[in-house]
Amino acid sequence: MQDRKAITSVPINDLAARRWSPRAFDAQRGLTPAQVAALVEAARWAPSCFGAEPWRFLVWNRADDAAGWQRAFDCLSENNRKWCKNVPLLFMTCAASTFENNGQANRWAQYDTGMAALSLSLEAVAQGLVAHQMGGFDIAKSRTAFAVPDDFMPMAMIAVGYQAAPETIADEETRQKELKARGRKPVAERFYSGSWGRPAS
Amino acid sequence: MQDRKAITSVPINDLAARRWSPRAFDAQRGLTPAQVAALVEAARWAPSCFGAEPWRFLVWNRADDAAGWQRAFDCLSENNRKWCKNVPLLFMTCAASTFENNGQANRWAQYDTGMAALSLSLEAVAQGLVAHQMGGFDIAKSRTAFAVPDDFMPMAMIAVGYQAAPETIADEETRQKELKARGRKPVAERFYSGSWGRPAS
Repeated sequence: MQDRKAITSVPINDLAARRWSPRAFDAQRGLTPAQVAALVEAARWAPSCFGAEPWRFLVWNRADDAAGWQRAFDCLSENNRKWCKNVPLLFMTCAASTFENNGQANRWAQYDTGMAALSLSLEAVAQGLVAHQMGGFDIAKSRTAFAVPDDFMPMAMIAVGYQAAPETIADEETRQKELKARGRKPVAERFYSGSWGRPAS
Repeated sequence: MQDRKAITSVPINDLAARRWSPRAFDAQRGLTPAQVAALVEAARWAPSCFGAEPWRFLVWNRADDAAGWQRAFDCLSENNRKWCKNVPLLFMTCAASTFENNGQANRWAQYDTGMAALSLSLEAVAQGLVAHQMGGFDIAKSRTAFAVPDDFMPMAMIAVGYQAAPETIADEETRQKELKARGRKPVAERFYSGSWGRPAS
């Protein structure tokens, strides 16, 4: 199995270093209820502005609800469907438009929902699983299929399961992506010290 | 020191379970350059849609740049200034409006920026530090003070440092917040199985 740790100037925690977004999933191994519960709990305990917990997560477990899983799968883009056919668990994350308690716009809702989604993804690593988030899905279709209210925005779908060998990916282009070296932009392009554009070392 | 682990139905990874957002910081202990670098690297390696890394982080280290730190501190809301006066390191997170490569709107930028911020916060836990994100700051003031371009949105400020005892917080109301039991909404209110509103167990 590929273990492609992040290349960092100093060591970082193992969950962050080992997390990546593979496309090769083991079709034979589902998740236990305790594993699903742990993913949910990790997302649940993410921080949020004013403690609003503005996220909603939908989950489809293929083992329990093959028809529901298929409806979620059918919302994915063609590219994502190429590799998601072996995924045992799919999530969709949604962000509220407003605060529940006062109806005011919540400008942090998508930000906070991302935090919950990353917490879930890192818990996947802790469980020996992998998680792969996807922006490529049909928002309108998912709204209709799963009755997402107008005041929530579908943000991402997440594939979770056990990793498989890259060779199990049939589609050539997708398999090449799986083998491509990981990378990030230089620190100086994203992290500034003291003022905008001044590179953090 | 308070160690207030998340109360979960099943165990979750230690970083997520131990992360919370304290207000009592040790004014005497700064961070080493390696610690700051690790926080940055953890944020840097967060996932993002199309690998855009749409976040920008500004960092002010009081030990290196007291004047810059003060300008960042002065952007905070009055409530946050009450407890941030002992914080050695402040960050501001900003999200791009568009994709760099094609100028198209990036609807995932705030979501992805939240992921990078959470990754930084969990790395703080791994380093024996605490991180506390804040929505309460003056956006317009921070734009001017730090030359944030119009096509980026300041999202949050983050206080990072060593935790201190709750008793060190002078303000009574703030100290009470520090001691309040942690909690989250029931799973069923945020996590749905198969379709909107159907509680996940």
